[in-house]
Amino acid sequence: MRSDSELSGTGELPVPKPAKKNYIRPLDIKHGRIDMSHGAGGKAAAQLIDELFLAAFDNAFLRQGDDGAVLALPGFDPAQGRIVMATDGHVVSPLFFPGGDVGCLSVHGTVNDVAMCGAKPLYLSASFIIEEGFALIDLQRIVQSMAAAAREAGVPIVTGDTKVVEQGKGDGVFISTTGVGVVAPGVHISGRNARAGDVVLLSGSIGDHGVAVLSKRESLAFGTTIESDTASLHTLVAAMLVAAPGAVRVLRDPTRGGLATTLNEVARQSGVGMLLQEEAIPVKPEVDAACELLGLDPLYVANEGKLIAVISPESAEAVLAAMRAHPLGADAARIGEVTVDPHHFVQMATSFGGRRVVDWLTGEQLPRIC
Amino acid sequence: MRSDSELSGTGELPVPKPAKKNYIRPLDIKHGRIDMSHGAGGKAAAQLIDELFLAAFDNAFLRQGDDGAVLALPGFDPAQGRIVMATDGHVVSPLFFPGGDVGCLSVHGTVNDVAMCGAKPLYLSASFIIEEGFALIDLQRIVQSMAAAAREAGVPIVTGDTKVVEQGKGDGVFISTTGVGVVAPGVHISGRNARAGDVVLLSGSIGDHGVAVLSKRESLAFGTTIESDTASLHTLVAAMLVAAPGAVRVLRDPTRGGLATTLNEVARQSGVGMLLQEEAIPVKPEVDAACELLGLDPLYVANEGKLIAVISPESAEAVLAAMRAHPLGADAARIGEVTVDPHHFVQMATSFGGRRVVDWLTGEQLPRIC
Repeated sequence: MRSDSELSGTGELPVPKPAKKNYIRPLDIKHGRIDMSHGAGGKAAAQLIDELFLAAFDNAFLRQGDDGAVLALPGFDPAQGRIVMATDGHVVSPLFFPGGDVGCLSVHGTVNDVAMCGAKPLYLSASFIIEEGFALIDLQRIVQSMAAAAREAGVPIVTGDTKVVEQGKGDGVFISTTGVGVVAPGVHISGRNARAGDVVLLSGSIGDHGVAVLSKRESLAFGTTIESDTASLHTLVAAMLVAAPGAVRVLRDPTRGGLATTLNEVARQSGVGMLLQEEAIPVKPEVDAACELLGLDPLYVANEGKLIAVISPESAEAVLAAMRAHPLGADAARIGEVTVDPHHFVQMATSFGGRRVVDWLTGEQLPRIC
Repeated sequence: MRSDSELSGTGELPVPKPAKKNYIRPLDIKHGRIDMSHGAGGKAAAQLIDELFLAAFDNAFLRQGDDGAVLALPGFDPAQGRIVMATDGHVVSPLFFPGGDVGCLSVHGTVNDVAMCGAKPLYLSASFIIEEGFALIDLQRIVQSMAAAAREAGVPIVTGDTKVVEQGKGDGVFISTTGVGVVAPGVHISGRNARAGDVVLLSGSIGDHGVAVLSKRESLAFGTTIESDTASLHTLVAAMLVAAPGAVRVLRDPTRGGLATTLNEVARQSGVGMLLQEEAIPVKPEVDAACELLGLDPLYVANEGKLIAVISPESAEAVLAAMRAHPLGADAARIGEVTVDPHHFVQMATSFGGRRVVDWLTGEQLPRIC
């Protein structure tokens, strides 16, 4: 996951250079410093990736910009599928929040990154960076939550590492997880595959995770408890792929930067536009109310158990039905369609009958949300 | 790498439960807190792994305790080999030190973990956790060093993630890398394979990395500059495997906890003892002098470009010759042998004709050395 702060892609050639991004000005590497917006999954993060990381690591795998990399392995029969590798750092604050914690989140996040490549996740690794003075009882709670999430997903943690840093040089615990999986033959999913006329599906309500974390961080109470949607989505993906083989073109989990930023990334990668229907986008009333109070737009709030899918139009209903038949897709909805747009804008038909451009996240809306 | 703070292993069954460790007392999870010794690669780290991480994640992959996990993949022909996955977090302080920086170290460390399973490393992922306010010019220098190390090793960084934490909640940059590789058929390397009578080889002088980092951290000058030995060892491993197919039983890079701790881990895993010859262990005079000054024992100081190998006796000379013919093994030496010992002690015949037990690292000798 991690939208555009991801550096990854597939090794399948030919790999075009991505279009120029037209940032207002290039990164001032000589005098500039990292700020929180560089981790927020929006425009600043995308620019940092492009101008600093991709410039150095430049290779065909990274240039594609998907949630994971599709790899060739000697000894692996391409007729049986392709290997996928994805990684994610987890620095959520607070470590425990309604509906989850950094432990289960670190499993779900990477399982989902692998699944968004259309792959069946098989194995996870975990790297822990722990702050001196952190209570063992909290560490145990996090590790047990991680273990439970891994067992539930059927994806074991097969290797790991622990490091300790001095008090004041970390923040409790950071967990980086990496996943490996296999994509079945005939499945070709990438942010580059959306075509005009395709249908955009969303697996459920947006904003739950971000609001749950923020409410805990700010000690807010909204009458009801809003829980994170954190979940492993690979079985939902498998059901979608069975429902309409070959019809699923793009899968993406709208984490940092939210639905708006994720759709903008896909529009840019595929060189298309999108037109969303505001009324069709599910937002829970309590999340909507909390966002109103906090001055947030749910379109930009992170999710950890939702996916967007771009589907060829003739199969959209079949895929939607498969999603709704799955517990994690019960509230799935058709939220828009892919359009021809040389500017790659994501637009939204509003509930009031107007139309507005839904831009990338700019600046930092919610730091350390995942 | 990362000796016993590694959680990993192979999925090859049957997998025995490891022997009881006889720690003085069990971890006090209810009231205890993480201290620096839990990250130092010695006894405290091993206990944390056993009693907290392995207790929760319990699976056959982790229980073996090697530097990486050997995995089965559907679609992968076992006659062609086996897949290896290894991960490592890098929190070295300072970020730049004589002979390297956290960037190249994070490539070498994980390439080496994969190589110590006898595998050819193929791909790396990288997760960056960056502190707000970190200078972009330093980040670029680190990322470029990482890219150069990956290019030199021929192991591309195929996917990644970046996160930003607030000033005072991190320390410059932490990098967690994960590697995937393939072990050729017939190669079976594990810390469990040492047998009495086997020969212990060391690829070169010890202590260089730890002393280089510490001298920079403490702003010490020793007349000459001691440089880190940080390097990718996979081509050295490949040369050793060609020299005597099937004769290489154990490979391990003596990082945190140094040579002493690594050999104790192997002794424990294999249920054997070891007898080292002090005079045979190469230590550079300037490293020896610096250790004397700093009150360190080079046997416990981290290395980042050295390996130990346990070799069947009839092939030891052939493997040693292959090591010496490689630039990273020019100073390779035969340093001891594997013995029968129900206590799994590592003993050393000293230069003065005596014999002493070389125990595990206890406490924290050098925090944040890698």
